[in-house]
Amino acid sequence: MFEFPKVVEIREVGTRDGLQNEETFIATADKIKLINLLSKTGLNYIEATAFVHPKWIPALSDAQAVMSRIEKKPKVKYAALVPNIRGFERALESSVDEMALFLSASESHNKSNLNTTISESLNNITKIAKEASKYNVRLRGYISTVFGCPYEGKVSTQQVKKIAQELIAIGVEEISLGDTIGVANPLQVKAVLKELLQVISPNQLALHFHDTYGRAIANVYAGLEMGIYKYDSSLGGLGGCPYAPGASGNVATDDLNHFLNEMGISTNIDQSKLFEATQFIQKKLNKPISSHVFKVMEKA
Amino acid sequence: MFEFPKVVEIREVGTRDGLQNEETFIATADKIKLINLLSKTGLNYIEATAFVHPKWIPALSDAQAVMSRIEKKPKVKYAALVPNIRGFERALESSVDEMALFLSASESHNKSNLNTTISESLNNITKIAKEASKYNVRLRGYISTVFGCPYEGKVSTQQVKKIAQELIAIGVEEISLGDTIGVANPLQVKAVLKELLQVISPNQLALHFHDTYGRAIANVYAGLEMGIYKYDSSLGGLGGCPYAPGASGNVATDDLNHFLNEMGISTNIDQSKLFEATQFIQKKLNKPISSHVFKVMEKA
Repeated sequence: MFEFPKVVEIREVGTRDGLQNEETFIATADKIKLINLLSKTGLNYIEATAFVHPKWIPALSDAQAVMSRIEKKPKVKYAALVPNIRGFERALESSVDEMALFLSASESHNKSNLNTTISESLNNITKIAKEASKYNVRLRGYISTVFGCPYEGKVSTQQVKKIAQELIAIGVEEISLGDTIGVANPLQVKAVLKELLQVISPNQLALHFHDTYGRAIANVYAGLEMGIYKYDSSLGGLGGCPYAPGASGNVATDDLNHFLNEMGISTNIDQSKLFEATQFIQKKLNKPISSHVFKVMEKA
Repeated sequence: MFEFPKVVEIREVGTRDGLQNEETFIATADKIKLINLLSKTGLNYIEATAFVHPKWIPALSDAQAVMSRIEKKPKVKYAALVPNIRGFERALESSVDEMALFLSASESHNKSNLNTTISESLNNITKIAKEASKYNVRLRGYISTVFGCPYEGKVSTQQVKKIAQELIAIGVEEISLGDTIGVANPLQVKAVLKELLQVISPNQLALHFHDTYGRAIANVYAGLEMGIYKYDSSLGGLGGCPYAPGASGNVATDDLNHFLNEMGISTNIDQSKLFEATQFIQKKLNKPISSHVFKVMEKA
């Protein structure tokens, strides 16, 4: 029914989604070094940081310094998370290539995370999109809690579909469906995608899995079976889940890349350079890394 | 094409495949306590130990004591690994319910592991099977390195098919296809099964995945898609890979059970009792447990 992808695009979100959930503050110079190492791996998309109020995410309070001092490679898109117009303006000043906006599929998570209703969030995103179009800034939209909410449990796929359609209408070019708490399973992934693909094209969708229950790679496989070829991941599996302390973060870029390549899917990413970048941040975080491939390569 | 299973049987191999690869020797009394805890989870199959020469696997040198002192539940099958006639006889004296025999799909691994050719191993298994039939002992056969060999790399699926057919002809009732070094991927799992299911029925097959590269759950999913409903796993993901020190062991029973149940597949296993058993052995091993679900439940 769907074409199994031959090429996959990996969106590296470790320096944003990963580091924002790490307890250790990574020095600005080290963030820059890390992004520079990532830029050499073959990755063509790095969500470098977030232009969020420092009170909300102190780990990324140095967004401007990071964006202005990294060595930008022409083939790499450097993106940043942006919660509001103020963030948009700051990101614009730092000339990011793409901005990622976000809201949740469940009202209570949206309320808790953004202190607004989903409807207000969509209005807010509309305002940012209007500004973005003036400056030709490409927008990405995260929908969180697509596969489950820490407060509400199950989330309505119809609700996800409605939000996704509105985002596309607003001008968001790519929607990342987030399994924020890592509860998705492959059957569910396929069911949700089957529904969304009725109204949205595969090239407008990306999948964003957390590995809380060790199912992220299986969920990626389900996504591939549905023809989705864009996946978010975090080098070394950085991050974690604020709702499940001690649990794994995003699916590890190291594991994802190895997995795809072993299946003959091209990613254009150098596994050994990914290892170097992971090794660098592992030393700075001084904690075990959840990536399986990293552990194997570390002992080799 | 294949029916997606509604019920899955989990073969717990942690007390054998898990403990034999752990550095810490677990005292006989603790092994017995662990098996007794596992017997209360709802698992109906426990590979309790191995009747192997203590020089080969010192960790399981107490096989006889373990088998004779565990509290056997009527609904649980207690199996043991048996490498030769001598092991068979010892296992018979200890009245195990089922014996697991093993060989590799690659000559060099078989040579390294058993010091014989595959052909000699099959002769050896034939001898054991003749004895087993006299005593009505059910036999299970492990084929190792089905999805990759540490010495030879790729392994011929035709070779696996031939060995599997011979094992069935000899009287082995269930064949467990082993991804000994954890290199399998879902596309490969499906390709290998497609070939094997031409000559072997799904009820004669089980899958045995190691999580070295974090793909075990994805591989289980591929197996489910092919209609396979028997999976080996190890509580907490005990064990490891002698060829990749530091790497994960078998897929964790905790993660596998949670994964299956979340997809609506019945296993009849109590997740919280599994947690108790894992918690018990974690304290004895005094090392981090690789199971994702365990980490979540531990912090809950």
